[in-house]
Amino acid sequence: MTTEAPVLLALDLLGTFAFALNGALTALRVARLDIVGVVTLGMITALGGGIIRDVMLDSLPPATFSDWRYLAVAAGGGLIAFVFGRHLDRLNSSITVLDAAGLSLFAVTGAGKALALGLGPAQAVILGAVTGVGGGTLRDVLVRQIPSVLSSGLYAIPALVGATATVVVTLLGVYGLPTAIGAAALCFGIRMVGVHFGLNAPMPRAAPGPGSDDG
Amino acid sequence: MTTEAPVLLALDLLGTFAFALNGALTALRVARLDIVGVVTLGMITALGGGIIRDVMLDSLPPATFSDWRYLAVAAGGGLIAFVFGRHLDRLNSSITVLDAAGLSLFAVTGAGKALALGLGPAQAVILGAVTGVGGGTLRDVLVRQIPSVLSSGLYAIPALVGATATVVVTLLGVYGLPTAIGAAALCFGIRMVGVHFGLNAPMPRAAPGPGSDDG
Amino acid sequence: MTTEAPVLLALDLLGTFAFALNGALTALRVARLDIVGVVTLGMITALGGGIIRDVMLDSLPPATFSDWRYLAVAAGGGLIAFVFGRHLDRLNSSITVLDAAGLSLFAVTGAGKALALGLGPAQAVILGAVTGVGGGTLRDVLVRQIPSVLSSGLYAIPALVGATATVVVTLLGVYGLPTAIGAAALCFGIRMVGVHFGLNAPMPRAAPGPGSDDG
Repeated sequence: MTTEAPVLLALDLLGTFAFALNGALTALRVARLDIVGVVTLGMITALGGGIIRDVMLDSLPPATFSDWRYLAVAAGGGLIAFVFGRHLDRLNSSITVLDAAGLSLFAVTGAGKALALGLGPAQAVILGAVTGVGGGTLRDVLVRQIPSVLSSGLYAIPALVGATATVVVTLLGVYGLPTAIGAAALCFGIRMVGVHFGLNAPMPRAAPGPGSDDG
Repeated sequence: MTTEAPVLLALDLLGTFAFALNGALTALRVARLDIVGVVTLGMITALGGGIIRDVMLDSLPPATFSDWRYLAVAAGGGLIAFVFGRHLDRLNSSITVLDAAGLSLFAVTGAGKALALGLGPAQAVILGAVTGVGGGTLRDVLVRQIPSVLSSGLYAIPALVGATATVVVTLLGVYGLPTAIGAAALCFGIRMVGVHFGLNAPMPRAAPGPGSDDG
Repeated sequence: MTTEAPVLLALDLLGTFAFALNGALTALRVARLDIVGVVTLGMITALGGGIIRDVMLDSLPPATFSDWRYLAVAAGGGLIAFVFGRHLDRLNSSITVLDAAGLSLFAVTGAGKALALGLGPAQAVILGAVTGVGGGTLRDVLVRQIPSVLSSGLYAIPALVGATATVVVTLLGVYGLPTAIGAAALCFGIRMVGVHFGLNAPMPRAAPGPGSDDG
């Protein structure tokens, strides 16, 4: 337990930073928002997953509000993206890589925090995945896109794999910085392979035609 | 109190199953999602209302995470809908009936759990209705539809009626499986009559013209 | 502390009323909803910010559910807007003014409640702003608009200013009805000046072109 807290904090802040950059760059891409809108979307993307996690775990107020470093890192990431985002030639690929990084880090820290607070292994896996996909889902809803967790098959799966790896190494008693980074790298690798090859999970064989609205 | 817990659990799991099928079939209808997206939308629809209820009641972690049966039923329902959904000739009516079933069961179990945890009658009615409409509202937001609770007059009303019936039979001391099913059937009946006849609550007499955006 | 609770309650109920009118009028404007949809959107707008605040503060069940006056004021405001909304010649400006009023009052009460429950000054400022913008953001997501907090530069900033003023007067020991109203008026004034002159915070100098979807 003595090694868990600093590892968790470092990876959590790194994930917060990646998602803050990602959310702010998304704001630059999808809508002509001013600096407040850009930084706000960055902060919501960065802090959303951890807030959902802490609400589920009854660990309130969320770490975001009890530890100023989360707010500072999230706001800083959003500002950096606002200032330097327009110089980025490859905005879309930056957004994708940063999203995969945040997804991976939060899946690991979410599962780790769930275990530390006494949840069972299966619950920790689910909660880790929810932490990973939560911020990006809020981001997509706010800018009116279908969330990646629904539209992209290899988005929830790598998060579940990363969270499972975290639970396994914890149960084996070898959780620490190297194994946590390994679990995150596993998630990141699967996600990026999926993006690169455009892979998806199995689709329904016969797609039902779109029906008229009822209800 | 001794008869409440098993009744609550059975109806809650049945509602979870109905909403999991409904959410997954909705995913098949509105967007060409792969298996992960279909199952994920089914699980969010199935578990969303109960999670909102448990957060409001400070009953955390939510039942979803402390009782594996919810996760299993939600995931199973989503998978079944993915496999068999393409064979359904009458996808829209299945979606409507399953949605009404989940709405009814969750309105009853939400009100019952609120009373069991000490909330007053009026609060239990509101929280029951919130539990009933919660999962479907998350589903509609994620696939970018106007939520049924806003667009369909006879959606919130049957949920409020079912929750009120639950509170009344509980205060009369006759809460049990038969009366709980009766309360759910009342809600389900009103909802289906509303769908069948296309009924709505009163509309504004003179609709204001759509204005330009301000703000 | 003895003067805080009634001040907080009075301003909180006033903000609830303003947001209930605002949400219901928004429902009349953006979609042809029936009475249930109009009142429901009014109630979500009115109660959403306070519920998010109370969840973050672990003050559960939310004030909404433990104090019937919030429910009554929110429902009453929604009904009044439904009945009289069609007579309003200047629907858009009413919506804007009511939104600014709710934003201002909730920023002040949110920050005040956060301080009263022991959060630090910076956290209270953020939580006040979240309380102010929360209900309107839920409203915009449900009717599928880009939330004001993202699209309008001078929306989050006045909320932060009002919350900061609340924290300052509290730390100076002069928090009471006059200073709380002063803090809300400061927020309201900045917001309305921003609306009147169409002001925004700085925009990115070179807007990146819209990219193709990835992910």
